[in-house]
Amino acid sequence: MRSIIITLSVLLFIPFAGITQTTDEDAFAIREIYDVALSEGQCYKTLEYLTTQVGSRLSGSPGAAAAVDYGQQTFEAMGFDSVWLQPCMVPHWERGEKEIVKIVASQTIGTQALNAVALGGSGSSGKTGMAAEVIEVRSLDELKAMSPVQVKGKIVFYNRPMDPLQVSTFAAYGGAVDQRVFGPQTAMEYGAIATLVRSMTTKLDDVPHSGVTIFEDKGKTIPAVAISTKDAELLSALLEKEKVRVYVRTTSHWMPDKLSYNVVGEIKGSTHPDEIILVGGHLDSWDLNQGAHDDGAGCVQALEVIHIFKMLKKRPNRTLRCVWFMNEENGQAGAKEYANWSNGLGEKHIAAIESDRGGFTPRGFTTEADESVYKIHFKKAKGWEPLLSPYGLTIKTGGSGADVTRLKPQKGLLFGLAPDSQRYFDYHHAANDTFDKVNKRELELGAAAMTSLVYLLDKYGM
Amino acid sequence: MRSIIITLSVLLFIPFAGITQTTDEDAFAIREIYDVALSEGQCYKTLEYLTTQVGSRLSGSPGAAAAVDYGQQTFEAMGFDSVWLQPCMVPHWERGEKEIVKIVASQTIGTQALNAVALGGSGSSGKTGMAAEVIEVRSLDELKAMSPVQVKGKIVFYNRPMDPLQVSTFAAYGGAVDQRVFGPQTAMEYGAIATLVRSMTTKLDDVPHSGVTIFEDKGKTIPAVAISTKDAELLSALLEKEKVRVYVRTTSHWMPDKLSYNVVGEIKGSTHPDEIILVGGHLDSWDLNQGAHDDGAGCVQALEVIHIFKMLKKRPNRTLRCVWFMNEENGQAGAKEYANWSNGLGEKHIAAIESDRGGFTPRGFTTEADESVYKIHFKKAKGWEPLLSPYGLTIKTGGSGADVTRLKPQKGLLFGLAPDSQRYFDYHHAANDTFDKVNKRELELGAAAMTSLVYLLDKYGM
Repeated sequence: MRSIIITLSVLLFIPFAGITQTTDEDAFAIREIYDVALSEGQCYKTLEYLTTQVGSRLSGSPGAAAAVDYGQQTFEAMGFDSVWLQPCMVPHWERGEKEIVKIVASQTIGTQALNAVALGGSGSSGKTGMAAEVIEVRSLDELKAMSPVQVKGKIVFYNRPMDPLQVSTFAAYGGAVDQRVFGPQTAMEYGAIATLVRSMTTKLDDVPHSGVTIFEDKGKTIPAVAISTKDAELLSALLEKEKVRVYVRTTSHWMPDKLSYNVVGEIKGSTHPDEIILVGGHLDSWDLNQGAHDDGAGCVQALEVIHIFKMLKKRPNRTLRCVWFMNEENGQAGAKEYANWSNGLGEKHIAAIESDRGGFTPRGFTTEADESVYKIHFKKAKGWEPLLSPYGLTIKTGGSGADVTRLKPQKGLLFGLAPDSQRYFDYHHAANDTFDKVNKRELELGAAAMTSLVYLLDKYGM
Repeated sequence: MRSIIITLSVLLFIPFAGITQTTDEDAFAIREIYDVALSEGQCYKTLEYLTTQVGSRLSGSPGAAAAVDYGQQTFEAMGFDSVWLQPCMVPHWERGEKEIVKIVASQTIGTQALNAVALGGSGSSGKTGMAAEVIEVRSLDELKAMSPVQVKGKIVFYNRPMDPLQVSTFAAYGGAVDQRVFGPQTAMEYGAIATLVRSMTTKLDDVPHSGVTIFEDKGKTIPAVAISTKDAELLSALLEKEKVRVYVRTTSHWMPDKLSYNVVGEIKGSTHPDEIILVGGHLDSWDLNQGAHDDGAGCVQALEVIHIFKMLKKRPNRTLRCVWFMNEENGQAGAKEYANWSNGLGEKHIAAIESDRGGFTPRGFTTEADESVYKIHFKKAKGWEPLLSPYGLTIKTGGSGADVTRLKPQKGLLFGLAPDSQRYFDYHHAANDTFDKVNKRELELGAAAMTSLVYLLDKYGM
């Protein structure tokens, strides 16, 4: 009788007949992973230290160096077979003095300070700052339709909001962020002396959000600052009534590139040591916050995968590698270095999972792979969904993460942990991305989701 | 060609052939509902007023009366066909003066105040308070296994935590809350002079959480207070070392029952006016907070369903009724009154949707119905899932809500909005359940989810 029951319940766990013969054992193993994550998890404590004791860690900063040191120590205490630092040269931008941005001598409201932060990569205004008339545009195309004569000597203000109708805030971000990334370079080409960008957030508030802007030549830049969404609304309304002059002062500047490191730890696989499963997040953050959701959360979740394997005394069949990547925010030097090195060695990452969308309740994973293998890989992973859906998780298309996407040539399946996205842009790249915004259970559930997926990848391969 | 495309895409929306022939039109209508909710939604503003201007609103309090008044005005401005107040007599308990609970003269830590709040329904200690030795138990059964001699004159401390291994925090709550609801009565029967209960939260912090406790006879009570989880840990650790005396002072007391009201608004159905679809939440809150997640969020989401119908100029086929129920927290007098009245009239609620699990990102709906109809109803609603899953929603078993469950005899399908549950018990019944804990988009997505379901119920019936 017992064998009939077992056979029946095993049958229930064959989602795509012939694809993956998962078993009750898998359901039990995943339950065990969640139990450990939710009762003996360390990731919240690790995050607390990384965010409140190490603090901000922009590439090239002393905080980034401290984070690498902390990472190495933490990895060494975790019981990897080997831990190493992988050197990479990172760009080194500094914010300089606190920015001053203000509307000057408006007929309607007089002089009024705006909540502003320089974008990463912004040029300096010089110590005296600069003031000019503002022209508002909603897109790069709108600017490009103007003649340089209209733009010359002015401050260009990009003010297209993130689309609130997108249920995924990442889709809304993707639809607006070109203004921040490419807008300042374009404005400069058209003769603007500075750029204001509406903060990339779904919230209407006073918090300015930084993030990278790209100037093609670091020696040829203009000041580029983000202003809060409320201030963007204010400025826009004012521009309907009158010509507006804004004063911008930022002493942001580039320093010489600096040596930094990815932190890497590895447990050799017992039966398939050449097949690598990577879990990772990025160690660098912006300079103005603790980098709690972006991406302290991803780092500690990736490390927690290893911790849970250790707690459960599971020796992996395949090689598990945990990487805290350096410089995701403004250059991805760590990701490039890792991929060049690994691709160059002819390594085979059968899978890589990045967590870099905040420490919120996980809803599943998005995936990508080289076109030649994607369909078959996706089908296999999708076959595991019945084991993951009791935990609210799905497997979908939709990309992986900036630090692992360069491993595509190795033809494994690349995953991004996909948490609930609604609150991410409340904090993204802003001063309020702090430890207290992370819920312990939500963080732990993300780590459990990643570990469950690693368990399946380790057992069944890809 | 066009008709082939339409036919094909219609076919794609037949989830259970023969059950519900939903169409592209439905997908478009739901998208439209989300668009309005996310761009022209009023629920966040309504919640701001209800929580910050009206404030706390425990049954029988002036705040509850103000909330009824505000509800009536808000409903009248919404353009219902009719708005009325439904009278009900509600219990009226008052917290009295700020509670004092402290460990007294411990050999280890001396005297130390504990973070504590009286449970709703707690008796008074009298002005001078009372002190006694504490005995800790983990369950009512553990207490019942003791002899009254062991318990007499002591303070019983219930300290079983919510189970962190439950992924659903509501399941964890359900597994622990008997201590709070029934523990004090039992302790009194065994001769205890007061009760301490570990706060019902998944968080380890200093915030005490109130909630109802039930004494069979309001004239025969003892003090019953919740202490924070950190203080529960402290007290428990101390009890392992030494006998501990605790001092409890609360002047909580019952007042005579008071007249209050449900707020009801109705739009008559154009083709099936006798088939009612109810949306609701409960207007009362605990006295120590703004009742933002519990259950201001549910009230404003229910009202938003009507607002979205109005914005889209949709005249419903069936009758839509929105109810802000009074007294869910400590008696459910409003729910009883409504059900008695409606069941008595022979009304037919084909469906009722309650939102009372916080204003977090919606994950779907749980359902219940009279056993004789549940299977067929559930199958029909489940057939709509493909229309809802693009918004991350599922239809599951698992109950509806305390205010609508009494409509079961009318044999409709009863729903509870099921948001992400991880953060709910961080705030539940505690002073920190305030407006700032609610994310605008998460709240709006819940309202959109409810409206989408109402749209389908209104179109296809149940």
